[in-house]
Amino acid sequence: MHARLADVTVQEALAALADPVRMRLVRELASSPEWTRACGSFDVPVGKAALSHHFAALRAAGVVEQRDEGARRVNRLRRAEFDARFPGLLELVLRGD
Amino acid sequence: MHARLADVTVQEALAALADPVRMRLVRELASSPEWTRACGSFDVPVGKAALSHHFAALRAAGVVEQRDEGARRVNRLRRAEFDARFPGLLELVLRGD
Repeated sequence: MHARLADVTVQEALAALADPVRMRLVRELASSPEWTRACGSFDVPVGKAALSHHFAALRAAGVVEQRDEGARRVNRLRRAEFDARFPGLLELVLRGD
Repeated sequence: MHARLADVTVQEALAALADPVRMRLVRELASSPEWTRACGSFDVPVGKAALSHHFAALRAAGVVEQRDEGARRVNRLRRAEFDARFPGLLELVLRGD
């Protein structure tokens, strides 16, 4: 279910992040403690199916990790692992320009 | 015609680079002296119209600069300027994984 970061190419990583909704999800995740944010808690203008698609794209690229806690699916940013594989890339996304 | 790098957002930069043909163009440009590569000289599996589109995307994101020399349109990578605006990003693309 979760990507091995060694298998994620730089093209896949760039494509996963080059989207305004996904950049927003990553920025909100970065500003929250790990495993505190359920999928429905993000301030993005998309429906539930689209949101699932966006999270799947981030998961496939190794950006986020998800787990189920009862009825909630909660998230964390794989910041250290992603930084190790793609140095500087998340920092650019989080810079917010 | 060419982008002011200060006006290019990180999302635009990521989207411009997150494409296999454009990554190839960037890598070939990086391995050639500036202004030596005409648009038709790249080893990419796309037609002329698609190639123009890809170069336009790279130009709009501030990645490449083009000028006409007689009948040829030649290119250079705006490496220093792009690096200053998006540190580390070209390096990831050129790493080639």
